Amino acid sequence: MRILLVGASGTLGSAVHAALRDRHEVVTASRTGADHSVDITDVASIDALYRAVGRVDAVVSTAGAVPFRPLTELTHEDFRAGTADKLLGQVELVRRGVAAVTPGGSFTLVSGVLAHDPIRTGAVASLVNGALDAFVVAAAIELPEGRRINAVSPTVLTESVERYGDFFPGFEPVPARRAALAYVKSVEGAQTGQVYRVG
Amino acid sequence: MRILLVGASGTLGSAVHAALRDRHEVVTASRTGADHSVDITDVASIDALYRAVGRVDAVVSTAGAVPFRPLTELTHEDFRAGTADKLLGQVELVRRGVAAVTPGGSFTLVSGVLAHDPIRTGAVASLVNGALDAFVVAAAIELPEGRRINAVSPTVLTESVERYGDFFPGFEPVPARRAALAYVKSVEGAQTGQVYRVG
Repeated sequence: MRILLVGASGTLGSAVHAALRDRHEVVTASRTGADHSVDITDVASIDALYRAVGRVDAVVSTAGAVPFRPLTELTHEDFRAGTADKLLGQVELVRRGVAAVTPGGSFTLVSGVLAHDPIRTGAVASLVNGALDAFVVAAAIELPEGRRINAVSPTVLTESVERYGDFFPGFEPVPARRAALAYVKSVEGAQTGQVYRVG
Repeated sequence: MRILLVGASGTLGSAVHAALRDRHEVVTASRTGADHSVDITDVASIDALYRAVGRVDAVVSTAGAVPFRPLTELTHEDFRAGTADKLLGQVELVRRGVAAVTPGGSFTLVSGVLAHDPIRTGAVASLVNGALDAFVVAAAIELPEGRRINAVSPTVLTESVERYGDFFPGFEPVPARRAALAYVKSVEGAQTGQVYRVG
């Protein structure tokens, strides 16, 4: 298959790339340091990406940032920024990518454990991840011509424990390569409307 | 208790009002036709509401609109409008209302069945409701001084079947007064971080 990987330069993106590149042609996109540069908060940038990349069989995303701050210190702008980036950025990757993905092809988005297992400072992440989980379930029943959509929802990654582990007390980390397996299942399998919890 | 009801003029809001007003002092707010006028998409309007209302023991919301349209016809603006209104509007009711709610008091938001049981044209509603369900679970562990937060997630209301029923094939409607009971449980009970599914 020909696969567009958005968010290729991150920890999870690198692992997904490694899991797919031996059997597929993977075209990478990221803010910087990939085949194509893209800012998913900018719809014109997403359109330019699809024009440049052309037809693909799958779009897989490991992209999106959200601010972390105690609930009482979060601002309206923090919520707007988080929803504009990881949430609506990935929604637009789907909406604007429908014509670029072959019928029967797939979208795979990244959500995360905080949708159902919250931590202090994580309210925006919880909101965004919960929204993404619900969105893939809904979009799956409306995508035309057999196109599929799933989300991968990993817990904290082993590779991120040194930087973020203190925020996740008692969470059992998983290596990024285990989360990458869920992307392989989504892309090469036939399921749709699924949220793959990893961890 | 002294309770602020936001969204008082709607079908659900009227039922919640009826369920609470005999035992509590209910102050109502809505776009129009209530004690106070408020636009929850405007943070200045929310701040003005809390200044006008003063201290309350509970904030209950039945407010928020989302656009309904087939997935491939939804626009970026539809997603932004839905998240700005029902989602971030209710989040701001919580964030900006913390100081107005007495310690141990509660917030109760409205989400909905589409978070987990999608229909055609409902992708924005699914996304918004899923986000709200996750947000209350997350916010519950961070609200200071014992303040609580829950969501009520009703299926389609009996009162709305004539107008919207065709969009919900096979959904068993519930009367608004049953959904209102979940608000009573949230306000008068002691639970927090719960999503009460009604239907």
